[in-house]
Amino acid sequence: MNPEPDYSAAYAVLHTDAGDGLEGHSLAFTTGRGNDIQSAAIQALEQWVVGRRVDEVLGDLGAFSREMVHEPQLRWLGPEKGVVQMAVGAVLNAAWDLRAKRAGQPLWQHLARLDVEELLDLVDFRWLTDAMTRAEAKAVLTRALPGREEREALLLERGYPAYTTTPGWLGYSDDKLERLAREAVADGFTQIKLKVGADLTDDVRRMKVARAAVGDDIRIAVDANQRWDVGQAIAWMHALAPYEPYWIEEPTSPDDVLGHATVRRAVHPIKVATGEHVANRVVFKQLLQLRAVDVVQIDAARVAGVNENLAILLMAAHHGVPVCPHAGGVGLCEMVQHLSMTDFVAISGTWADRVVEHVDHLHEHFVTPVQLERGRYRAPLAPGGGGEMHAASVADYTFPDGPQWRARGAR
Amino acid sequence: MNPEPDYSAAYAVLHTDAGDGLEGHSLAFTTGRGNDIQSAAIQALEQWVVGRRVDEVLGDLGAFSREMVHEPQLRWLGPEKGVVQMAVGAVLNAAWDLRAKRAGQPLWQHLARLDVEELLDLVDFRWLTDAMTRAEAKAVLTRALPGREEREALLLERGYPAYTTTPGWLGYSDDKLERLAREAVADGFTQIKLKVGADLTDDVRRMKVARAAVGDDIRIAVDANQRWDVGQAIAWMHALAPYEPYWIEEPTSPDDVLGHATVRRAVHPIKVATGEHVANRVVFKQLLQLRAVDVVQIDAARVAGVNENLAILLMAAHHGVPVCPHAGGVGLCEMVQHLSMTDFVAISGTWADRVVEHVDHLHEHFVTPVQLERGRYRAPLAPGGGGEMHAASVADYTFPDGPQWRARGAR
Repeated sequence: MNPEPDYSAAYAVLHTDAGDGLEGHSLAFTTGRGNDIQSAAIQALEQWVVGRRVDEVLGDLGAFSREMVHEPQLRWLGPEKGVVQMAVGAVLNAAWDLRAKRAGQPLWQHLARLDVEELLDLVDFRWLTDAMTRAEAKAVLTRALPGREEREALLLERGYPAYTTTPGWLGYSDDKLERLAREAVADGFTQIKLKVGADLTDDVRRMKVARAAVGDDIRIAVDANQRWDVGQAIAWMHALAPYEPYWIEEPTSPDDVLGHATVRRAVHPIKVATGEHVANRVVFKQLLQLRAVDVVQIDAARVAGVNENLAILLMAAHHGVPVCPHAGGVGLCEMVQHLSMTDFVAISGTWADRVVEHVDHLHEHFVTPVQLERGRYRAPLAPGGGGEMHAASVADYTFPDGPQWRARGAR
Repeated sequence: MNPEPDYSAAYAVLHTDAGDGLEGHSLAFTTGRGNDIQSAAIQALEQWVVGRRVDEVLGDLGAFSREMVHEPQLRWLGPEKGVVQMAVGAVLNAAWDLRAKRAGQPLWQHLARLDVEELLDLVDFRWLTDAMTRAEAKAVLTRALPGREEREALLLERGYPAYTTTPGWLGYSDDKLERLAREAVADGFTQIKLKVGADLTDDVRRMKVARAAVGDDIRIAVDANQRWDVGQAIAWMHALAPYEPYWIEEPTSPDDVLGHATVRRAVHPIKVATGEHVANRVVFKQLLQLRAVDVVQIDAARVAGVNENLAILLMAAHHGVPVCPHAGGVGLCEMVQHLSMTDFVAISGTWADRVVEHVDHLHEHFVTPVQLERGRYRAPLAPGGGGEMHAASVADYTFPDGPQWRARGAR
């Protein structure tokens, strides 16, 4: 469904005149063409940012979020979806990066140490109250207050569970799949993922190879990247069922709440997961209300930033559904790990059945790259939200004038 | 929800070297800021358009639609929603405008005279088959084959039913509302619409004024423009119920299929309508599957053009739900009337309980402005899809260099 991606990012930087040398960095991930549309959308938000008082903005990021999400003219282009929502996310995440740096804390810790009321003020409850009121969200956070400190210590000691997509890309030979699957287990992962959906016969064979390689105790998730209609999804998963796939990810359109519910009923006990392309909290709300998914997959750069992801984490906890973020791309691992760690310390209060995706790509471009150890993300200690690239990487790869592009004849 | 709109459009023109003087014109409607993002998205589609053989593209607009909708990198920014989907719609609608002009037919007639298989080839059934297969869509079209000629003649003679939003804007005095409501009835309209949702006491009073002005036989729709949460919507409509509103339009988020279903159950017999901000056919599919709406409101410039709107019209007919398009803005009346007329002649085969919105704004900028007569749209006879503006209007209002903008100091 997403062939020949050219991993790219519309990169946003907030500069201030505070003289403290701190900047807010973040990005919206794209797969190449369209990066300029995404950049135009981020630039359209400048009026809400440039020239404002830093303390005021950072001191009330709930208000800042609402101003941009409900921007009275830009909202016509959504509302709250696609390019514009991703632009709001990039700007807002850059503000969170700056705020965490100023506080001298990694973002996960900064969020997880906020008061309950401070966290609630960050969330936009508009359109959510039939599934979660502010009072219900408060109950979730209050329930997790006891033990925050212990969980923070545990997280620092043990790291957060990860799974790996490295073995399972389409196009790998069976030998390579088998070798990488074994390596993943040897590296300490307890879950791997296979891409599926191109050819059923191939998928059955690959699933068999993978299951034989990892044994019965390792979870194998499969990911269809939206390829199927509802009926196809069900038939395909019935064919893979003998090899016990753990979840089926993106079986169909990310907008199709009812379709996911139908698939889920039909493929039980295989779990259904989605979210990397779910446009906003209203669609996540329905996935939870209808029990259409077993696993909620947030993405750091799809919705309106940390604030909307907090709303989704709260709703998932309120409905008792685990959140296992999508990552990969460019910088998505670096950013989204913070949200799962906040979830563990201060929201759901557990990492049971929760894993953050790990893809071993492009981490070298980031100032604070993720650190995996025995299948777990080590909790980052550096201040900020994780999305800052090395200045040299930005300079080298800026389109179309960076040296890497010039060398390819971009102009 | 959409305060201070500055009605705008990203305007797309397809030029050819055929030497016949014909061009394809269309637009994506915006409310001001964001028009440049929308324009960037249209430009990003140039690679699918510029330099191609005109006959090839126009001869298979189903394929042309699928190429752009499934563009492998741009789809990451949706998929199939927001700015990118609207851009595909603008380009595709411009291609339809050109094709209808070359055929020497108004678009409604050009579409309504296509063979059943030609119409089916235009539709992308991906993600739809659990609600409507190609065979089911074929049954809809085949059922409407008998009587196409008679209905075309009837349409040319009588025009298509309209309703008017002119009396009911927020901010009008009660006197003005009363006067405009009476005038609408005197002009032959059988349905008017009031904007609601700012203040309940005001709305109850305005509804009472409007009902007294038009009497019991005129339908009064109300439109909340997404303002409410689900519970609010229900309470508000219960308060307005004594004055018998005909439908409540956009009671809540356009993404909230379950929310609309809940509102519909609670406010019966008041009908629920939505669609002007529904992002694509997958969301419409669910609104129909769940019986979440009584009225489907397509928009000419929101989804991926004529092709996706044909899919929605077919699904609505298959589910027995009337389509009453959203219009207004800039050129939306001019464009969307064609789709309802095609629906009447060749798809649902009826105009019972169907009306196209009419707003009396900005028609003077269009080469073939809509013509209303006794509350009905006269069927346009001029070749094309209706979206072509006068060259002088385009030149005058082009941002930021047109004289109208220069006079306002845009730069």
